[in-house]
Amino acid sequence: MPAAIASSSLPASNGTAKVSAPAAASSSSTSATWREKAAAKVRSRLTSIPSAWHLPSSILDHIDENSGSDVRSIPASCGILSADELKITETPAAGLLAKLQSREWTSEAVTTAFCKRAAIAHQLTNCLTEIFFDEAIAQARQLDEQYQITRQHVGPLAGLPISLKDNFNLKGKSSNLGFVAWIVDASDHDSALVKLLREQGSVLYCKTATPTAMMIAETVSNANGRTLHPANTRLTPGGSSGGESALLAMRGSPLGIGTDIGGSIRIPCSFAGLWGLKPSFGRFPTAQCKSGLAGQEAVLSINGPMCNDFEGLEIYAKTVVDAEPWHSDPKCLPIPWTPVSTAAASLPASLTLLMLTDNGICTPTPPLQRAMRHAVAKLRAAGHKVIEWDASSNAADADLFARGLSHIETFFRAEGGATVHSIMESSGEHIDWVKGLSETDPSRELSVKNMWQSQAKRSAWQTELLSRIQQLVGGKHFDAIVSPVAAEVTTTHDAYHHIFYTGCWNLMDMPAVVMPLRGVTVDKSLDAAPTGFQAKNESDRKVWNQYKPEEVDGLPICLQVVGQRLREENTLAVAKKLHDDCV
Amino acid sequence: MPAAIASSSLPASNGTAKVSAPAAASSSSTSATWREKAAAKVRSRLTSIPSAWHLPSSILDHIDENSGSDVRSIPASCGILSADELKITETPAAGLLAKLQSREWTSEAVTTAFCKRAAIAHQLTNCLTEIFFDEAIAQARQLDEQYQITRQHVGPLAGLPISLKDNFNLKGKSSNLGFVAWIVDASDHDSALVKLLREQGSVLYCKTATPTAMMIAETVSNANGRTLHPANTRLTPGGSSGGESALLAMRGSPLGIGTDIGGSIRIPCSFAGLWGLKPSFGRFPTAQCKSGLAGQEAVLSINGPMCNDFEGLEIYAKTVVDAEPWHSDPKCLPIPWTPVSTAAASLPASLTLLMLTDNGICTPTPPLQRAMRHAVAKLRAAGHKVIEWDASSNAADADLFARGLSHIETFFRAEGGATVHSIMESSGEHIDWVKGLSETDPSRELSVKNMWQSQAKRSAWQTELLSRIQQLVGGKHFDAIVSPVAAEVTTTHDAYHHIFYTGCWNLMDMPAVVMPLRGVTVDKSLDAAPTGFQAKNESDRKVWNQYKPEEVDGLPICLQVVGQRLREENTLAVAKKLHDDCV
Repeated sequence: MPAAIASSSLPASNGTAKVSAPAAASSSSTSATWREKAAAKVRSRLTSIPSAWHLPSSILDHIDENSGSDVRSIPASCGILSADELKITETPAAGLLAKLQSREWTSEAVTTAFCKRAAIAHQLTNCLTEIFFDEAIAQARQLDEQYQITRQHVGPLAGLPISLKDNFNLKGKSSNLGFVAWIVDASDHDSALVKLLREQGSVLYCKTATPTAMMIAETVSNANGRTLHPANTRLTPGGSSGGESALLAMRGSPLGIGTDIGGSIRIPCSFAGLWGLKPSFGRFPTAQCKSGLAGQEAVLSINGPMCNDFEGLEIYAKTVVDAEPWHSDPKCLPIPWTPVSTAAASLPASLTLLMLTDNGICTPTPPLQRAMRHAVAKLRAAGHKVIEWDASSNAADADLFARGLSHIETFFRAEGGATVHSIMESSGEHIDWVKGLSETDPSRELSVKNMWQSQAKRSAWQTELLSRIQQLVGGKHFDAIVSPVAAEVTTTHDAYHHIFYTGCWNLMDMPAVVMPLRGVTVDKSLDAAPTGFQAKNESDRKVWNQYKPEEVDGLPICLQVVGQRLREENTLAVAKKLHDDCV
Repeated sequence: MPAAIASSSLPASNGTAKVSAPAAASSSSTSATWREKAAAKVRSRLTSIPSAWHLPSSILDHIDENSGSDVRSIPASCGILSADELKITETPAAGLLAKLQSREWTSEAVTTAFCKRAAIAHQLTNCLTEIFFDEAIAQARQLDEQYQITRQHVGPLAGLPISLKDNFNLKGKSSNLGFVAWIVDASDHDSALVKLLREQGSVLYCKTATPTAMMIAETVSNANGRTLHPANTRLTPGGSSGGESALLAMRGSPLGIGTDIGGSIRIPCSFAGLWGLKPSFGRFPTAQCKSGLAGQEAVLSINGPMCNDFEGLEIYAKTVVDAEPWHSDPKCLPIPWTPVSTAAASLPASLTLLMLTDNGICTPTPPLQRAMRHAVAKLRAAGHKVIEWDASSNAADADLFARGLSHIETFFRAEGGATVHSIMESSGEHIDWVKGLSETDPSRELSVKNMWQSQAKRSAWQTELLSRIQQLVGGKHFDAIVSPVAAEVTTTHDAYHHIFYTGCWNLMDMPAVVMPLRGVTVDKSLDAAPTGFQAKNESDRKVWNQYKPEEVDGLPICLQVVGQRLREENTLAVAKKLHDDCV
């Protein structure tokens, strides 16, 4: 078993685990059972990778969650991928589609290359849950053959491999969502989005790891172990779509689909330096997916693309919306896709931007502060109007954000964690594991009456925040709110994560694009914590206590571009412009 | 005190009440207090009507909820309105706007005419809750003066009186929603829609009665008494927007705004022979309204226009959406309005229609069956494809509707009626009054965990119903589902009402237009109940037991035209076409 996986697999049954946090919990006959199940799953994943694609122990033995290894160069150096396969896997989604459409590359060649690289990524970062490379390559071959006969592509994504977060149901595959109880549950159906992606010609080849119940901003669970950051294995690639971010950062996928109810697309994108789109609810289909909090609707979970290139986001979004998903998912909105180029053409030359430099709860750490100063200067120089908003400097604003955070926490914990607890109890796995739902206790379940009251307060809060934003920008119109995605660039494992730079826009149902900044990376010499920093509160203290510039040195930095609700096309157009103007 | 009001006012303290159902309940010092409050409100409403507009006792003494009076001709015969005022009030909304815009009629003249006629309607049917004619006429005069100066209309609704259901908040006015406890609560703000309507130039002059908590398909409460049907005072004008339907049927308003969470716009429109539009959630603003079940979001309450003419519906809808309400209500969807003429131009010559003749729970009563046969024949003759769907003939279909009904009932009663009970208890009024929430019991409150499970099941049910509809019509496309609005044309007071011909489309969030049929009215000689009718269940038995053809003889008949979600414009275009083709 590769060391990265063994060490990061909490239930490792062979005694090789180097990490022992939850695994060190006292053993009992029940826990032995769940550990065995999880260990068997770990082994079966490796078995489903062809042995020719297994990395040698000479590489793996040096890599674990404590080693601080940068594994990003291993795909190129390990000899498993050919030169062509390296070229394919380093081509972004838009370029791949162009080559697939021109038939310069076959789908079989492209799919095989990404399967290989995903296999390597998994051995190094433990990012996959379900692996079905054989099926994928067979499907790719079939697409190629079909094209030979018909001379027509099945759809705009024809031949493109797409990786999916574990919660998308695929017939015959399980979706464990980090629960040991669900490790072997095979779904009897495809999710609505899965059907759509197949119809548009994409090739599905793997599913990616989530934390327990998808409710942690890291990616770790009893069922799947821990997923590691490719640039530094002591760090987390974020969560809950952290299997995706690790895989994408390893170039083991050209396009991945994550989900986001409080930041689960954006935090992993930001931690791994990727582009990502969290849409408003209803643009992309969500029907028939698996959820850790099924039926929770006070904050709506959405899904969206994660990518190494900007263009991949739009190709994906346009394809999904053009397929009119509202005919198969009644919650989808029948809003046609406007090309981003059209949206871009109607943007004013001088954009109106609100830069949220501090939400009044957690102060962004030094690299993010520096990145924002850089962006403000560049954007103003480019002629844009940038209004800086430091909510910590105004008690009413700080209270507005604090109340919002309280609302989202109330909704996530409304049934006292009863659903999650009961799933975990059914396998006997350790319960005290769901940090996103920490402080849950089934006895503290809300009454429905209280739930209704909380929902009414949240609705009033939405109106209040929108109104405050309009007051700050001086009218109804703004092009974007720009902010950090989190207070941290990323963190070491098991850290505290403040999620309201992202969760705020889930509560508002506003779209957000994660945009890697060009020309700015973390620099430990510039980004030391200032002496005498005064934490505003316990959350702020936790964020800053764990900040270690040397751990994140050299990492990319992302910002979040938040647009008006259901204006995904505009938000993408603005993000692209800001990306270009920030250089 | 006019007899209609005294007799229909349950808490009448002057001893003249002829109806005694809830009023006959045992008196106590507490109940005396709530009765006094309600009686004082009844008197204050009459006081706010100028004495010159009071009907003589020679008319009122013969009218009460048992008299079976047809009061529709009284506005023309009573002498209170001038010939011009009669002409104004019998002009539909679209015509009024044309005359207001051409300045042939001033807003003051139009507003005064409608205030007078609303005053008469109220004395005859007890349809109003808040009366502010003085303010309205002053505002109308101001609009006229402003036009004289600027030669510009304030907005597309400039000068048009609009009546509002009681739950719209107006600064300084109360919204009692049938609760005695709220009779004197003055709001400190305007609802988002109220602000918008004022900005577009409309003149607000009264608010209309609702049943307790807006959760009965009639209009009766301890706070407001009972609202009577203008064509036959032994009948109900429906509910919960029954103050509106009575007022509109009396021509005391050119355009009224109701709300609908299970049929509360459509049932009153259908019972009173009016046009109505229940939109999908998000087309029109709902922020800052008062609710009997505040924060209940599993089924979303919407608002929409009720009208004597089709054109009024579109004028209203276009005005509201053109005002971009999403900038002030974050729950509104930024979907621009497509003119109905544009939508109509893109309709196929042969429409694909699904006629739901029976939902498998309650069989429509004879006049509705006859109306549907009439419509099917006419629509087929006009070249449309009509697929008849009798869900009672297929166990799986009947079960689909039965499960839907169970879902909506679960959501309405999810907190065991706790919110409504606590509001009622605070005034001491009788509790066993909210039939829409019958069988509620605060001890039977759902847990949030169960609530989540119910919501997840409802989402799966939505997908299942949409898929079944597509199977029936043979593809993704259909132009409309046509069905009765209720199993009854209307009923005598305190009857059972089956609400799933309407509630189904609230659960699906699909738009629905209530369309009066031309050329078909109830005919007791044709619409006798068939002998040997076998009820399918207890609900069906109740509907048919109360069916009395002689009570509804001569009444108009409406059908419901249900369109695809968020396709309000298309649904209106289809309804207009069906209306024309059904003659």
